[in-house]
Amino acid sequence: MSNLETILAKANDSQPAALKRLFELLRIESVSTDSAYAVECVNAADWLVAQLNDIGFTASRRDTDGHPMVVAHSGGDGRHMLFYGHYDVQPVDPLDLWDRPPFDPVIEDTPKGKVIRARGASDDKGQLMTFVEACRAWKDVTGELPGNISILFEGEEESSSPSLVPFLTEHADELKADFALVCDTGLWDSDTPAITTMLRGLVAEDFTIHAANRDLHSGKYGGPAINPIRVLTKILGGLHDDQGRVTLPDFYEGVPRISNSLKAKWDALNFDTEGFLGDVGLTTPAGEDGYTAMEQIWCRPTCDINGINGGYTGEGFKTVLPADAHAKVSFRLVGTQDPDAISEAFRKYIRDNLPPDCEVTFRAKDGAAATNLPTEAPEFALAHKALSDEWPNEAMFIGMGGSIPIVGHFQEILGMDSVLIGFGQENDQIHSPNEKYDVRSFEKGTRSWIRVLHALQS
Amino acid sequence: MSNLETILAKANDSQPAALKRLFELLRIESVSTDSAYAVECVNAADWLVAQLNDIGFTASRRDTDGHPMVVAHSGGDGRHMLFYGHYDVQPVDPLDLWDRPPFDPVIEDTPKGKVIRARGASDDKGQLMTFVEACRAWKDVTGELPGNISILFEGEEESSSPSLVPFLTEHADELKADFALVCDTGLWDSDTPAITTMLRGLVAEDFTIHAANRDLHSGKYGGPAINPIRVLTKILGGLHDDQGRVTLPDFYEGVPRISNSLKAKWDALNFDTEGFLGDVGLTTPAGEDGYTAMEQIWCRPTCDINGINGGYTGEGFKTVLPADAHAKVSFRLVGTQDPDAISEAFRKYIRDNLPPDCEVTFRAKDGAAATNLPTEAPEFALAHKALSDEWPNEAMFIGMGGSIPIVGHFQEILGMDSVLIGFGQENDQIHSPNEKYDVRSFEKGTRSWIRVLHALQS
Repeated sequence: MSNLETILAKANDSQPAALKRLFELLRIESVSTDSAYAVECVNAADWLVAQLNDIGFTASRRDTDGHPMVVAHSGGDGRHMLFYGHYDVQPVDPLDLWDRPPFDPVIEDTPKGKVIRARGASDDKGQLMTFVEACRAWKDVTGELPGNISILFEGEEESSSPSLVPFLTEHADELKADFALVCDTGLWDSDTPAITTMLRGLVAEDFTIHAANRDLHSGKYGGPAINPIRVLTKILGGLHDDQGRVTLPDFYEGVPRISNSLKAKWDALNFDTEGFLGDVGLTTPAGEDGYTAMEQIWCRPTCDINGINGGYTGEGFKTVLPADAHAKVSFRLVGTQDPDAISEAFRKYIRDNLPPDCEVTFRAKDGAAATNLPTEAPEFALAHKALSDEWPNEAMFIGMGGSIPIVGHFQEILGMDSVLIGFGQENDQIHSPNEKYDVRSFEKGTRSWIRVLHALQS
Repeated sequence: MSNLETILAKANDSQPAALKRLFELLRIESVSTDSAYAVECVNAADWLVAQLNDIGFTASRRDTDGHPMVVAHSGGDGRHMLFYGHYDVQPVDPLDLWDRPPFDPVIEDTPKGKVIRARGASDDKGQLMTFVEACRAWKDVTGELPGNISILFEGEEESSSPSLVPFLTEHADELKADFALVCDTGLWDSDTPAITTMLRGLVAEDFTIHAANRDLHSGKYGGPAINPIRVLTKILGGLHDDQGRVTLPDFYEGVPRISNSLKAKWDALNFDTEGFLGDVGLTTPAGEDGYTAMEQIWCRPTCDINGINGGYTGEGFKTVLPADAHAKVSFRLVGTQDPDAISEAFRKYIRDNLPPDCEVTFRAKDGAAATNLPTEAPEFALAHKALSDEWPNEAMFIGMGGSIPIVGHFQEILGMDSVLIGFGQENDQIHSPNEKYDVRSFEKGTRSWIRVLHALQS
């Protein structure tokens, strides 16, 4: 039996103990958004420090202005890898929609197999423990940790990570590695592992159109007085053409063409558009003409109105012409689309379309370019092969409609790319009541990391 | 000295006592929207009953499910006239913006003359008392009330008049007259009296566009998932063309052309567009191309969005694709535009423009046709002449952008038209802190009614 096979076998044998350890972590109520749980976040960090020290890392809790970080180093040689996960979890409300106490984990039998039911089972405690358990099995068999590994666990991922950038900046020398391993994503499907390599960027704009100096009565002023809601709807209504394309000049600058070979590969994935939309009560892809739903999510930019309000919106009716109207608009970016240029084009479009007597104020915007990870780098090929060896189907490089901020921070602050591997499922109900993680995800996830770490030693 | 001149002189002599009486009424805190003031509404009704009985009317308080009505009859002969006013007032909040207690009336000297400062001074206690004082002076001089007069004072005008229609319906025989006199409108300017003869109608629509069965994340679903705010803004943005005209088919059916002679007459009024708009921080009439601001208000229909909301509208940003989006849209109608046809065209327009996966629900609408009072009827000419005799300038027949529901109720339930005469000024601050009524409005208003009543005896 090769070394790898021995370690994999060890991981299998250790499953009962591994689940017991995971349950200990799941019982810690480390909700990061609610300061009432601050001590629980410290407890989770301390528990992780103890685990990591126990298997040979040099680990410590690093306090911040918010919840603490956990940092650990294996002290080994070779390619330096920084593993990232987060120990904090989403709040549990509405509690009455949970079928059992969210911090009392249990293994449940379901028609689709055994699941671990608890808040954080999937996001992200179960996921990060696949890596810790892989290291433990490795250490148990070989007496050493797998190479030159550092670990960063944060406790504020579910509450906008206020301490993250300062911490990365302050400890850049300590944390900078050759590349990062991030375990906070999902499988393609239950038999197909995935490495997420395309993440859309974001421009978020928040603005108000102002007209009269006070709310007016539409009987008295309706007609001659400009109505800012009408101005707003006209402007927003003009952001897309009849083909669903964004009308801002040069908006599509930097959007890559999808090559025929890539398109063929993606088509072969047989993305279940009907199921994806049907799950939320929809039937018809509403994005740009000429693109599949999957293409629309992975590699086409969007413009969406995320919030709008103005005038009287309560019960009944009030014939008011309001003084102002407000909207929040966001753009999802792909390829090399420039967030600043798009923000500028958007603001110019609004200003150019304002009628007399109207003004616009913009609040601070938020922007990030899309992330395109370098799949041609050797780490990606090695991880791809390792995952494909573990799972029934070959691993996929996939895209994701949203962004994962840590990837951008690692690029910008530490100058390193990330390999995003995770074992979550669409139906894990993260952020919702009755969160779960498949036992199979936990088992094969641990085995996957053993294979990936083994491959990366080469 | 003619009889008329004697009565007018009597009214002048009675001014100090008349103001004292008005102050008694103004001290009664008859706020109708707040049930804490219900007893004050009864007190105001009782006070009016006593006044009217004192000058020879047969008056009584008529209790309803809400605040009481006051009904009085003079019992005289000739043309039967029903005078309408309301004794209830708007709430006084925000109280800290008042310069003095709102229910402690006082005469103040201002650069533009003496004013009566109190809640209800203009809307509508000061106005209705001009009519009562006219009757009192008449009675004092002649020993009789001026002809065949009935009076209806309501106490729910500022709280949607829930008891009005049932009361009119139940007492139609008692209240039906040849026509109504309503004192709840204003002068054209401080030297020019006005009879309001054109009131715009209203269609109010309140609807929601539904898409997915729950709120979605715009990273995960942005692109293929339809966004109901985007659908809503596109639909609402298409309601007007570039000339500011409403795009619904047949919308302008029944909108009368403004004759050249009427236009010339209106132009001669020198409506102060700059002042009208400047007062609320605007400079440019925003309505239909080719019409003056006054024409836009008096005799052109409008479509306005009075409220809109959807998605996340709080602090910061949430990249949500909401499940639904909501708007309130109203149309002001003129001429013989049909509220039902317009509601139907609007709903059809929305349904026709809904993309797949979207549905719309409409809440009960509210609708009323425009009112065009018959200025060719003799009562209008008589009142016009009487007002012109009292004031420096000739009286004007004018329009009003809003509606006065009582006029429609009198037409529909009692089959009679209304002559709308009032002495309010633009700057009376009705519904706002520091409401006032010009002492001159009160004095000349009383004299105006004496002249009108005298003319109507013919």
